[in-house]
Amino acid sequence: MDVSKIKDPSFIKNLTDDELVELSGDIRQFLIEKCAITGGHIGANLGVVELTIAMHRSFNSPQDKLIFDVGHQAYIHKILTGRGEKFDTLRQYKGLSGFPKLNESPHDVWEAGHSSTSLSAAIGMAKARDILGEDYDVVPIIGDGALTGGMALEALNHIGHDKTDMTIVLNDNEMSIAPNVGAMHNMFGRLRTNQNYNRAKVDIDGFLSKLPGGHKLRDSADRIKDSLKYLVVTGVFFEELGIKYVGPVDGHNFNDLKEAFETSKRINGPVIVHVITKKGKGYRPAENDKIGTWHGLGPYKLETGEQVKGSSKAPAWSQIFSDTVQSFAENDKHIVAITPAMPVGSKLTRFQAELPEQFFDVGIAEQHAVTMAAGLAANGMKPYVAIYSTFLQRAYDQMLHDVDRQNLHVVFGIDRSGLVGADGETHQGVFDIPFLSHMPNITIMMPKDENEARHMLHSAFYEYSGPIAIRYPRGNGIGVDVDDNLQPVPYGTWETIHDGQDVAVLSFGPTLQLIEEVRDELLKEGITIEVVNARFIKPLDTDYLDKIAQEDKAIITVEESMLSGGFGSLIVNYFNDNHQHIDIKRIGIDDEYIEHGDVELLLNDIGISKANIINEIKQSLKRKHEKN
Amino acid sequence: MDVSKIKDPSFIKNLTDDELVELSGDIRQFLIEKCAITGGHIGANLGVVELTIAMHRSFNSPQDKLIFDVGHQAYIHKILTGRGEKFDTLRQYKGLSGFPKLNESPHDVWEAGHSSTSLSAAIGMAKARDILGEDYDVVPIIGDGALTGGMALEALNHIGHDKTDMTIVLNDNEMSIAPNVGAMHNMFGRLRTNQNYNRAKVDIDGFLSKLPGGHKLRDSADRIKDSLKYLVVTGVFFEELGIKYVGPVDGHNFNDLKEAFETSKRINGPVIVHVITKKGKGYRPAENDKIGTWHGLGPYKLETGEQVKGSSKAPAWSQIFSDTVQSFAENDKHIVAITPAMPVGSKLTRFQAELPEQFFDVGIAEQHAVTMAAGLAANGMKPYVAIYSTFLQRAYDQMLHDVDRQNLHVVFGIDRSGLVGADGETHQGVFDIPFLSHMPNITIMMPKDENEARHMLHSAFYEYSGPIAIRYPRGNGIGVDVDDNLQPVPYGTWETIHDGQDVAVLSFGPTLQLIEEVRDELLKEGITIEVVNARFIKPLDTDYLDKIAQEDKAIITVEESMLSGGFGSLIVNYFNDNHQHIDIKRIGIDDEYIEHGDVELLLNDIGISKANIINEIKQSLKRKHEKN
Repeated sequence: MDVSKIKDPSFIKNLTDDELVELSGDIRQFLIEKCAITGGHIGANLGVVELTIAMHRSFNSPQDKLIFDVGHQAYIHKILTGRGEKFDTLRQYKGLSGFPKLNESPHDVWEAGHSSTSLSAAIGMAKARDILGEDYDVVPIIGDGALTGGMALEALNHIGHDKTDMTIVLNDNEMSIAPNVGAMHNMFGRLRTNQNYNRAKVDIDGFLSKLPGGHKLRDSADRIKDSLKYLVVTGVFFEELGIKYVGPVDGHNFNDLKEAFETSKRINGPVIVHVITKKGKGYRPAENDKIGTWHGLGPYKLETGEQVKGSSKAPAWSQIFSDTVQSFAENDKHIVAITPAMPVGSKLTRFQAELPEQFFDVGIAEQHAVTMAAGLAANGMKPYVAIYSTFLQRAYDQMLHDVDRQNLHVVFGIDRSGLVGADGETHQGVFDIPFLSHMPNITIMMPKDENEARHMLHSAFYEYSGPIAIRYPRGNGIGVDVDDNLQPVPYGTWETIHDGQDVAVLSFGPTLQLIEEVRDELLKEGITIEVVNARFIKPLDTDYLDKIAQEDKAIITVEESMLSGGFGSLIVNYFNDNHQHIDIKRIGIDDEYIEHGDVELLLNDIGISKANIINEIKQSLKRKHEKN
Repeated sequence: MDVSKIKDPSFIKNLTDDELVELSGDIRQFLIEKCAITGGHIGANLGVVELTIAMHRSFNSPQDKLIFDVGHQAYIHKILTGRGEKFDTLRQYKGLSGFPKLNESPHDVWEAGHSSTSLSAAIGMAKARDILGEDYDVVPIIGDGALTGGMALEALNHIGHDKTDMTIVLNDNEMSIAPNVGAMHNMFGRLRTNQNYNRAKVDIDGFLSKLPGGHKLRDSADRIKDSLKYLVVTGVFFEELGIKYVGPVDGHNFNDLKEAFETSKRINGPVIVHVITKKGKGYRPAENDKIGTWHGLGPYKLETGEQVKGSSKAPAWSQIFSDTVQSFAENDKHIVAITPAMPVGSKLTRFQAELPEQFFDVGIAEQHAVTMAAGLAANGMKPYVAIYSTFLQRAYDQMLHDVDRQNLHVVFGIDRSGLVGADGETHQGVFDIPFLSHMPNITIMMPKDENEARHMLHSAFYEYSGPIAIRYPRGNGIGVDVDDNLQPVPYGTWETIHDGQDVAVLSFGPTLQLIEEVRDELLKEGITIEVVNARFIKPLDTDYLDKIAQEDKAIITVEESMLSGGFGSLIVNYFNDNHQHIDIKRIGIDDEYIEHGDVELLLNDIGISKANIINEIKQSLKRKHEKN
């Protein structure tokens, strides 16, 4: 069938077994074709085609609440709830979001993007239902990776205690984003079908040997394996927490899924349905992915799965950072790298392979990642934490209370700083400056190019002390040559890129490329501006600011970040506190969330565009001339 | 012995059993007497007297790393490491901290204050040890309450997976701060000594009945209880995670503790030693506490335990907030209250007792508390989250990603906003404005007195929408009469308390009392100032600001909060963005952590004092006259 014509999921309930399988095939083909053009989280979605159909068969959305943890696996849900026709716009500017969105459909009841929120949301919704005397099912769908996030465990603890009625769908694809790590993952492994029997056997052997006379029973252990099996697969971990366990269930088998959901619906109280799925199922390039390359990606060639590369020949920012840190770590065992489940995204797989003793992938556990780094630093190490700006939000208190307050020497590579584009508002890296800059001991930097990045990293590990955050954007570097001989970046200093008159434009990171273009454009009109690489966001280079003030220049700050609590606001306050009245225009994000879409288009909306910056410079000049 | 003379813990290793018991008694007496005068976390410390001595007997601090989770239970550790003589200054200005402090002693290897950080720190330290080829024991001591915090579970998951060698001391006193809640707590309960046998019996009965022929064995279950006991008490939860379990151990028995620690030291890999202690042991008023009153408290009468009340007759701020919300909830089941383990601190015990269906104590789980509230709001409820400012730091991402981004109607009572005094730098509520004010949808308020607090709460639940944070300080209200008839506070408006000339002082909360004193003082000199109740921190009352600008007044902002990203900085940026050059002096905390001590003394250091504010007003007037 043409799945883009589906308006409502209710038709699913009347499908025969064969028709369900056919629908799965059609959806799978549709996803593979559409995502080849738009990019997206294809692997995760291919794994949950049958599961999502089965959920819509057994539950009645939107009365029943389907809560997708993270939310990147909701493409099938979107198709079944009438949004297939919009898939050409997936993750595009003003198009369909790659995540559930309240304003897209009444079937989307919870927005996410960050991991591990669904269980807390679920008990909230279930309590609302119970208190208001309503009657519906609450069905969070959470991956085995997301379940290792601390807040999911906090929620499980509460759910098990309160015995709140819900069906938790544990989507176990043996991966979070990268392959899963952690003891809980090992336990899931033990729960998985094929290993159950082996474990049962070990358990019963051990158990019986302790019984007086039990050894006589051991010989018959094989005979009794079937009657014991349920004991082993009842998911002792969850049962200990007070949550009934059903599974494991083949996540690609409609009958098994139906049976499990019907069982769960009959049980009053929380039930976890452990579903085994295969990430990327039905598309060989994605199925064969073992490291997480197919988690979220751009366009690819349909036949081969080969990813369509951008035109940039420059290395990725994350590659520059990871390779540079690795080059230090190879000669200095005090340097270790920590990533919360992002070895692929942060391009640390070579580090992981070549320096395994100095590498920690802690899974989706940002809080633990940061405080573990603090523990390492407290005992003489120099840890490097590579973490996406948006996910560092999860570890705000760990940054403040554990790292910054103890003034520990931890280096943070803040990946995906600034706008990230297609992933949208939950992933934009635009809050880190406001939430870090008020921490007393921290240093915050951003390099203008990959060469400066390397000097900054050298300085961070070998010249500076205390907590140091170096921001870098998503995507590829500028393409400049890099020095082999790394030198200290003088602490707290900015750099004049071009001298000029009347107006100084202060920015940092690759935004400076745009400012260069602005300068070139203005030069044609005979206007020269000072372009400043404000590579230290904290501390500000107050000597430089004083120089600008002395020269009576107006200032324009440009930051791909929230204005409130941001770089420009720090400068405004600096001058205010010195009772100097400087004309300052701040360009950045003004108190709003930025949705998904092409970064250029988004930047244009924000005002980080050549035209707008030129306009603002001219306005400054006008004010200046009016004043004089 | 005179325990204030102890210089070093090494003497403990040579003590006889009787001498150990005597030492415990002496320490206990010392603590009870000292804390009667200084106040402190007496209950938690009385529970770990033997445990702390036993740890110093079995381990060699500071080579071995004793990591106290939260840290409020480290008084005995402080005494044993030479700080008994300073106990008269405990929690006083410039005196001994109530928590481990790196700069107090080499025996303090980790600072905390917030819960659940010790396990992440421990694996960090242990990895540092292993990578650097060093040899020492790492010994985190964590309470059963703290173990429910998400990051502790993230760390357990990692520790179990990596099999990192350490001894985790689980101090199980059946309470976190209030009595523990959650499924994990129930599990601990099942593990406790007295219940082991019963559980063993149930388990074996159930187990045997499933065995073919097993029913014949059931009759002999009693006989085999001893051989089975180990199976039951091996702590299946921890063993599932890959962590060896030893216990439960009587935490007041030196021989048992020694045996457990020696066992743990022999095992290579992570071991959890489950120690049962009695909070408040040895002091009847504290022992009898069932709800957590004796967790952290001020001075008390030695004989009776009666707490020495302050002179204020006004109700506590937390009482005003909780009672008002309860009065709404009694007539509106959409209103529910959530606290992360602070029913006593936030004075919600009456709410809990009288409206149990509308009350959730989720334990030490701030992240879950906030996102659960989001889930409730998403399904039509109006949740109220009472949370200390400092602990809300743990839920920064949940505020931003779950509540604010979805623009959900959740009301936050931000307790202990501003300086808290004796608990010190980990507990000062001075970061919430900087970390909340850059969130696009949030409203942030602070009432000047308890009457305004009630009108604000009414407005928050019934007049406004979206996320609303109402800050209130520790301690007692102003003592004003309160209106029964609650009225809307016009959204986003400030209030003129006194009109005046030339200078407007803008502040919020009880700091306005101080500004009133400043005004009275200046009146004597013939100087009148405008005093503004800036009760909305976000949004700013820009009409009011425009009026001030029009009147050409200088502005002084006073905030018991970080300046960076704070209230004053928002005002400075507002005028900057409008190209209005107003003379603004910001008074508040300038990029530093504020240690423990009497709030008045701390405020004086910060410059929030009558003398300093008067001085700044005069400086403003001087600049104004120089300009004109």
